[in-house]
Amino acid sequence: MSEAAKTLDGWYCLHDFRSMDWHAFKQLSSDERQVAIAEFQQVFSKWNHVADSGEGSHAIYNILGQKADIMFMVLRPTMDELLHIETEINKTTLSQFMIPTYSYVSVVELSNYLSAEDGDPYQNPHVRSRLYPALPKAQYVCFYPMDKKREGEDNWYMLPSGARKDMMYSHSKIGRGYAGKVKQIITGSVGFDDYEWGVTLFSEDVLQFKKLIYEMRFDEVSARYGVFGSFFVGTILKEDAFAKYLYV
Amino acid sequence: MSEAAKTLDGWYCLHDFRSMDWHAFKQLSSDERQVAIAEFQQVFSKWNHVADSGEGSHAIYNILGQKADIMFMVLRPTMDELLHIETEINKTTLSQFMIPTYSYVSVVELSNYLSAEDGDPYQNPHVRSRLYPALPKAQYVCFYPMDKKREGEDNWYMLPSGARKDMMYSHSKIGRGYAGKVKQIITGSVGFDDYEWGVTLFSEDVLQFKKLIYEMRFDEVSARYGVFGSFFVGTILKEDAFAKYLYV
Amino acid sequence: MSEAAKTLDGWYCLHDFRSMDWHAFKQLSSDERQVAIAEFQQVFSKWNHVADSGEGSHAIYNILGQKADIMFMVLRPTMDELLHIETEINKTTLSQFMIPTYSYVSVVELSNYLSAEDGDPYQNPHVRSRLYPALPKAQYVCFYPMDKKREGEDNWYMLPSGARKDMMYSHSKIGRGYAGKVKQIITGSVGFDDYEWGVTLFSEDVLQFKKLIYEMRFDEVSARYGVFGSFFVGTILKEDAFAKYLYV
Amino acid sequence: MSEAAKTLDGWYCLHDFRSMDWHAFKQLSSDERQVAIAEFQQVFSKWNHVADSGEGSHAIYNILGQKADIMFMVLRPTMDELLHIETEINKTTLSQFMIPTYSYVSVVELSNYLSAEDGDPYQNPHVRSRLYPALPKAQYVCFYPMDKKREGEDNWYMLPSGARKDMMYSHSKIGRGYAGKVKQIITGSVGFDDYEWGVTLFSEDVLQFKKLIYEMRFDEVSARYGVFGSFFVGTILKEDAFAKYLYV
Amino acid sequence: MSEAAKTLDGWYCLHDFRSMDWHAFKQLSSDERQVAIAEFQQVFSKWNHVADSGEGSHAIYNILGQKADIMFMVLRPTMDELLHIETEINKTTLSQFMIPTYSYVSVVELSNYLSAEDGDPYQNPHVRSRLYPALPKAQYVCFYPMDKKREGEDNWYMLPSGARKDMMYSHSKIGRGYAGKVKQIITGSVGFDDYEWGVTLFSEDVLQFKKLIYEMRFDEVSARYGVFGSFFVGTILKEDAFAKYLYV
Repeated sequence: MSEAAKTLDGWYCLHDFRSMDWHAFKQLSSDERQVAIAEFQQVFSKWNHVADSGEGSHAIYNILGQKADIMFMVLRPTMDELLHIETEINKTTLSQFMIPTYSYVSVVELSNYLSAEDGDPYQNPHVRSRLYPALPKAQYVCFYPMDKKREGEDNWYMLPSGARKDMMYSHSKIGRGYAGKVKQIITGSVGFDDYEWGVTLFSEDVLQFKKLIYEMRFDEVSARYGVFGSFFVGTILKEDAFAKYLYV
Repeated sequence: MSEAAKTLDGWYCLHDFRSMDWHAFKQLSSDERQVAIAEFQQVFSKWNHVADSGEGSHAIYNILGQKADIMFMVLRPTMDELLHIETEINKTTLSQFMIPTYSYVSVVELSNYLSAEDGDPYQNPHVRSRLYPALPKAQYVCFYPMDKKREGEDNWYMLPSGARKDMMYSHSKIGRGYAGKVKQIITGSVGFDDYEWGVTLFSEDVLQFKKLIYEMRFDEVSARYGVFGSFFVGTILKEDAFAKYLYV
Repeated sequence: MSEAAKTLDGWYCLHDFRSMDWHAFKQLSSDERQVAIAEFQQVFSKWNHVADSGEGSHAIYNILGQKADIMFMVLRPTMDELLHIETEINKTTLSQFMIPTYSYVSVVELSNYLSAEDGDPYQNPHVRSRLYPALPKAQYVCFYPMDKKREGEDNWYMLPSGARKDMMYSHSKIGRGYAGKVKQIITGSVGFDDYEWGVTLFSEDVLQFKKLIYEMRFDEVSARYGVFGSFFVGTILKEDAFAKYLYV
Repeated sequence: MSEAAKTLDGWYCLHDFRSMDWHAFKQLSSDERQVAIAEFQQVFSKWNHVADSGEGSHAIYNILGQKADIMFMVLRPTMDELLHIETEINKTTLSQFMIPTYSYVSVVELSNYLSAEDGDPYQNPHVRSRLYPALPKAQYVCFYPMDKKREGEDNWYMLPSGARKDMMYSHSKIGRGYAGKVKQIITGSVGFDDYEWGVTLFSEDVLQFKKLIYEMRFDEVSARYGVFGSFFVGTILKEDAFAKYLYV
Repeated sequence: MSEAAKTLDGWYCLHDFRSMDWHAFKQLSSDERQVAIAEFQQVFSKWNHVADSGEGSHAIYNILGQKADIMFMVLRPTMDELLHIETEINKTTLSQFMIPTYSYVSVVELSNYLSAEDGDPYQNPHVRSRLYPALPKAQYVCFYPMDKKREGEDNWYMLPSGARKDMMYSHSKIGRGYAGKVKQIITGSVGFDDYEWGVTLFSEDVLQFKKLIYEMRFDEVSARYGVFGSFFVGTILKEDAFAKYLYV
């Protein structure tokens, strides 16, 4: 049986990073800015309706540093809905002042190294809560994409299945040591974007991201086989703080 | 006999990715936008005439994420026609609001690892339907360019022909497991663009892209020898939805 | 016990690099420029209040070459404060003439290769002065981000702890040879930014940066395991010289 | 005797790639566009005079895909003349609507792996015709820069001279198999640009580029030692078609 | 004794590359352009005064190809002076039409592989003439930054000192073979910029750059250990030709 068949896939996921063009935004009159913000809040209202009905979830964060100012993370049952959402954002007035800086397309994924369970996992309530998660309202977020290395002797995909399973088990044990401190959403992006996975971490203590990832880096699966893209870290941008954030 | 001589080559192929400059497009009056859209639809009409007469094929997709908003994929018997098409697009009013983000130049290619068949393959109707394909109107598309690796011990081009043939056979067997689920168009780009091949996948179920590519990644030909460029994924943009997509 | 647990973490740190858009700045009237400068100096006043009360520190340098014109380095107890500061800068009039060119997010870190000491290190005054440092007003600064290599035989994270400790000890001995000549602030950025550490050096003699880093490059920990990002070097921009620097 | 001494060097070569800014060009009045085109055609006239007198050569091609719209390839006896030509182009009105996208600086080079011949090769008419070539008016062009690899066991420059000579001989044999189908101009760029050589191919059949390069890729000198930059492919832009190409 | 201590360091060096924005420059009136050029020539006058008094040196070259149009290379006793010069350039009217494309920060360096000599080398007139050189007015210039490799078995910094010394001696012998043909200025940039060294070559015969660098590439120190950045090549822009160069 092939490796791929064991993966469980949930909601599709779009991470969308943008930077404010404050200069251009200031050229608007105060009234025009208010209208633009109100129009964008209508988009949030729709997202909230979807989240309330359990048909998706989303998170909005400010990103620290120049990589981006704002990250939208949106989960939906279909990629078509994500495309619709992206287009809807792009057509707003406010998005004219939000320069796209990075995006990531993926799908919530549960590892194919999970031990087998009886029955249809897609009917298992615990599995469902992980495949179709309500994103937490944590104070901090961390996002990064990653690959498994395929270079010379360090080729994850040439390892026997048992060796991979053992390493992933040891890896997940470190993650479990952070239970209650860091909430982790793994999304798969093979065929969808430039890395193989996206990792989104949520915590009330930003230092836990550093501790977790640093500890994992000594684990063979990261040390030998982890290839990491850019890291984005930020703080929650609550909807009721959105207008204040954009006040100039 | 050299390796190259066994390759069959069909229609030339241009993948052209663009992002909408919604801000600038909104500066037009509603009438100007309508005129621009109608002018562009004239281009589509020409393409449809060509497709109807079996002299080429094309596909138009929205791309998810910030890499692009729209992908045009066009197949033609000569590269001159593709250049003419690209120039024609560039001279439209609408293209002034479509920022080029990526392109790929290639030619439909059937592998030189095919078993030999009797007769002139270019007269074989089955082969012809693959060299000069009518692109499907599938809901989802996935495109990525790729190379075969030439690094240290992992050098595809230094392998004996038999080893390459065996690996490609095993590889194609995985592909055949997705028959009916994923339609695959391989285009060769040695000498034409920065990678050696382009892969365009079509499916009614976007998750099949991930399953197929992930499964292949454990296959030696991908695991040891595959080098992948950027991945683009999107949903079909039907011509009758084009004006609606551009409505602002 | 895991590696990560031994790290001591202090103030969060933002390095923010910007280039002046002199052309646009000159379009302002002399009065408008004065107002913009005065507004920005208000930001500095706030930073000085924080520094005076021991709740943070900052440094402002001109950078040589085209990578940037100005570097702001700001230390604060929380990442939220850094985000607030970045947003405050971005909303000033002057920042409309300062093009972002690079940034780095990290946290002051004392190595987990330190010998253990008795008691809670966070209560140790010497340790505290290093975790929550007052940045020196040295004439020159040097900043660069770095990783430890994970390639083939040169994989820092696969080394036994003792070997790493020995190499770091030898490494730090070189650093100590520059005591009094170069002040070094190490900030950790695993999970926060694209490299694992940021290194900020201060000196009254810019040549000491070259001597120190060149000498270290022959040390095994750098020679085999160091991966370096971009280097930024510059001279202090004192607050009372800020208006003069911006005079056009 | 050193390797370098055996190289024969001919005319200096500038490849200059540009993309049309159609949007801006359309802002001109029809008359202004005609004037701009006529001014540029004057540059072509000068080039033709030089070519007619055997003091240089040039070729003008449309490039397919978004890497460029137009490639100018110009050969001259001195680098000073190329600089003069580049400056002259840049000062034209039309060049204001041609965004530079890539360039390559090199000199026509005959390999130092040539068998020695009697007499001064620079007086040999056959050698001279290759060092100071009249560029063909072929329908298609292909350009790419390349290096010889210097990585681990695959280090071209550490091989004994004999091994290099043997491999280059086998390599050139493949090239000779395309005599009459592909015309090849090799230009050396060590010390002049970022790769070590530029390769410019001309053919009446664009597919021959792919066949030639693909076949060579299995040759050890390419398979193990070839490092390739971007590939550009296009069709001839004849001078009498220039105005039509620019008609909007 | 450490390696670093044996290096001799002279004047600080800024290479500053810019491209003309001819389109914008043409928007000025002829008078405005004259004023802008005259203002810039005032900067040159100051540089000439400094050069005349032996307190620094500079060179101004046109660069061939699209990487830059102009290179300023300036040597001064302190980095502060270079920063002042860069700021002064940036504040001129003409610099508004000169887009920065690359820069390099370094310091004139004499190798630590020099044989020891008696006495204080900084008092040795021959050494001084190399540490504080008057840049030649040669017709051609070539600039490139470079590193010594640290990859697997090819790690310069892990070699014993004697092996490095032997290789550098053989390397310098090739350089000496070009005495009278190529003048070479080596500048160190460890801690100052992204590569470890900058190499600036001057010659009356541009082909000598290619011959020298190509010959060196077969030398083990380059073949195994050389890592090269971008190459820039160009012709001298004499001050009395500056206004003519900018005439449009």
